[in-house]
Amino acid sequence: MKKFQVVGIGNAMVDVLTRADEEFLSEAGIGKGIMQLIDMDRAVDLYSRIGPAREVSGGSAANTIAGIAALGGRTAYVGKVKDDQLGAIFAHDLRAQGAVYETSFAPKDAAQETGRCIVIVTPDGERSMNTYLGVTEFLQPSDIDPKMMADAEWIYLEGYRFDGPDSHAAFAKAINACKGHGGRVSLTLSDPFCVERHRDAFRLMIREDVDLLFSNRAELMSMYRTEDFEVALAAAAKEVDIIACTDSENGAHILSGGQRWHAPAIPTQIEDATGAGDLFAGAFLWGMTNGHALDVCGRMGCVAASEVISHLGARPEKDLLALFARHGLL
Amino acid sequence: MKKFQVVGIGNAMVDVLTRADEEFLSEAGIGKGIMQLIDMDRAVDLYSRIGPAREVSGGSAANTIAGIAALGGRTAYVGKVKDDQLGAIFAHDLRAQGAVYETSFAPKDAAQETGRCIVIVTPDGERSMNTYLGVTEFLQPSDIDPKMMADAEWIYLEGYRFDGPDSHAAFAKAINACKGHGGRVSLTLSDPFCVERHRDAFRLMIREDVDLLFSNRAELMSMYRTEDFEVALAAAAKEVDIIACTDSENGAHILSGGQRWHAPAIPTQIEDATGAGDLFAGAFLWGMTNGHALDVCGRMGCVAASEVISHLGARPEKDLLALFARHGLL
Repeated sequence: MKKFQVVGIGNAMVDVLTRADEEFLSEAGIGKGIMQLIDMDRAVDLYSRIGPAREVSGGSAANTIAGIAALGGRTAYVGKVKDDQLGAIFAHDLRAQGAVYETSFAPKDAAQETGRCIVIVTPDGERSMNTYLGVTEFLQPSDIDPKMMADAEWIYLEGYRFDGPDSHAAFAKAINACKGHGGRVSLTLSDPFCVERHRDAFRLMIREDVDLLFSNRAELMSMYRTEDFEVALAAAAKEVDIIACTDSENGAHILSGGQRWHAPAIPTQIEDATGAGDLFAGAFLWGMTNGHALDVCGRMGCVAASEVISHLGARPEKDLLALFARHGLL
Repeated sequence: MKKFQVVGIGNAMVDVLTRADEEFLSEAGIGKGIMQLIDMDRAVDLYSRIGPAREVSGGSAANTIAGIAALGGRTAYVGKVKDDQLGAIFAHDLRAQGAVYETSFAPKDAAQETGRCIVIVTPDGERSMNTYLGVTEFLQPSDIDPKMMADAEWIYLEGYRFDGPDSHAAFAKAINACKGHGGRVSLTLSDPFCVERHRDAFRLMIREDVDLLFSNRAELMSMYRTEDFEVALAAAAKEVDIIACTDSENGAHILSGGQRWHAPAIPTQIEDATGAGDLFAGAFLWGMTNGHALDVCGRMGCVAASEVISHLGARPEKDLLALFARHGLL
């Protein structure tokens, strides 16, 4: 048995959650429902304009790993924070959830701070993310411990992390160490605009290394440059062993080995959509590494996603195992 | 018209909110339902033992001021934070709520950090508070701007702040400036153990300066060293113009000028009791400085308290004015 079921690599950051209406988004020039990268000046300006907020550990792959850890899975996480108060909060929350997190903290005199994401939640529950990457941008090959990757059944790579000069090489190092020891590679496309920025790099990795691809409808269509979702699904299925594609209120589509399954969405009152895809991936990976059939993994993903969108914050608050049982998945 | 309806002075801190069961409290040696002061070592140890948490601005008087500001009241707050990330969060959240907060930040090289309170919420909704004061302990007379106090209809003093060597003198300076310009003084007893620690100082201030005393049942009985609540109420009413005493599920008792009113509690599902007394005081002061009768102010206090205990965190999330209207108080 390998030490880790899943090791995640991504942007380590703390979410700054606040509520505002659509008018605020347009006044502040914030694109709705997407992730936009901002610099420190913009972060300071935006922070001065939002209402009272609360701080919760976030980061896409970190949310996924926290979800798997909350389910009792054996996990580790790699992502860079600084030795500052927000970095300590991020590290605490992952470890307290049971994940291994042995980061090399960026030193106190580093020019950047721990990354943060100002998440504006509109009354419809949609989240618009404004990401100041900070030190997490500088994840590099030396941050990757090959032994940890070799000890992973799966590694989980966050597409957002393609937004960093040295992270492609870091991903390559992780992939080599993982695959060299019989592990497998999963990737999430993260965001349609992220796909726009890095389509070629994504494509290369998908064709050569990825065994399991997570995406949503918009990301997959952007990836394969088509307006036809079915064309995108078919194209992806030709290149990757397993496709797990979320589709909002239509649930999720799982494709593998010429077969296809549909997992229905679980109706819920959407408080804050942040983390839906992250928790879908977490539950899916937990299910798969615990021997569940792919269609069951898809259903677990939808249950976990519905839990996380029912409250503010992108990490689970309820007992996911109990929810799986209640839905007849265990 | 004075610039401020209420200026609050208290311990500035960020709450670290987490859930745990009673067993955790006893294993960790935490007194249930009370505020205990801890040092930095204990704070670090305790933080390493709690589960994932979320960070929300807190501080008793700051919650009160945030509540008044959320109602549209003209407020300011005085309390010390450091120029660090948690200090920036605290300052942002008060200002974003509309309160004036012109603190002299403790410098980056100060020995202590911004204060924080590790709040453990048990399944019954009760909160057990573990307070690392940090720089807020060192509030001193030079932090008090007499002009701000002179510009206040009311100042609101937090009993917890008696736990600091120079704060008694700071309170005296604030009281003199406020009363010297026709303002009035309110005080909250904060916590029964706080009353134990500072009974004589409280007593002196109550007799000489306090026009409005906030407390709960346990604090008032501790203050007047009696097991008989009615005796305590009568003793307090002899010394202070207005008494507003909360009594958990029994609501609140208001006494003034030989009259007495009872405000019923608003039944609600208690998620997190943190901030109940703070928001009671905030709504009461807002009501009073907007010309409402004392019994109405008491009812407003109970409505605001019921809102804040219905969710995690000690500052209001719903529209309090709308809630007052729904209860026929506006």
